[in-house]
Amino acid sequence: MAKHQRRSDCPINYAVELFGDKWSFLILRDLAFKGKHYYVEFLKGGEGIATNILADKLATMEKEGIVVKLVDPAHGSKFIYKLSRKGIDLVPLLVEFIVWSAKYDRDTAADMKFVNKAKKDREGLVKEISDQLKKVLSA
Amino acid sequence: MAKHQRRSDCPINYAVELFGDKWSFLILRDLAFKGKHYYVEFLKGGEGIATNILADKLATMEKEGIVVKLVDPAHGSKFIYKLSRKGIDLVPLLVEFIVWSAKYDRDTAADMKFVNKAKKDREGLVKEISDQLKKVLSA
Repeated sequence: MAKHQRRSDCPINYAVELFGDKWSFLILRDLAFKGKHYYVEFLKGGEGIATNILADKLATMEKEGIVVKLVDPAHGSKFIYKLSRKGIDLVPLLVEFIVWSAKYDRDTAADMKFVNKAKKDREGLVKEISDQLKKVLSA
Repeated sequence: MAKHQRRSDCPINYAVELFGDKWSFLILRDLAFKGKHYYVEFLKGGEGIATNILADKLATMEKEGIVVKLVDPAHGSKFIYKLSRKGIDLVPLLVEFIVWSAKYDRDTAADMKFVNKAKKDREGLVKEISDQLKKVLSA
């Protein structure tokens, strides 16, 4: 099978080849924490992603099994996006991003209740969010 | 002071505006886990970073206080790069990248001893690495 030529098999490299761009983690954020599931919701995510970039990133994440794309049962003409198990397993990473940025960005809009919970009981928080997303996935 | 216009104050956005590229995390990996400190060492990191991109990323990380650049006491004509406290605080994030990639990349070259330690005692592992890097920083 023809495959994209990897630069190395380093695990950090695997991640940056997938997510090393200005947008992927924002889409993952919307899926993981903001209850967003529709293309137009990601498009209006707040940072002004262009529609072609959004389409491209969603297609890549679907192909890589991070996001699942389903026909919306409520609107047969629409698609609904959800995090897969592989995507849900990115929650710990997203939590670390938030904790770090909240510590070092003076102008952060981070939710400090969330940050404090992450610092006090990181595993509990990750489990809580992951369990919720697994429910969404199997709904 | 003139500042780069941010897209939002979201903590995930703060991180992707800093690190959302194909290279920054590889340089951080070299600094955090591989004991690399010199420009030429990053250049030969294995993934083939171009020298202009490396120079640009190092300059950004220095400006953002993630990396410190010092005149090498051993070779007055050379510079040595180290992770700052802010950079060392990225270790938990790097560990999560490794754990996730090791789980999902069939061809991963991840060190499974490291991964198992991370899964069993994540905090202990982070502390061990961070303490070592703090020693390096204050050396």
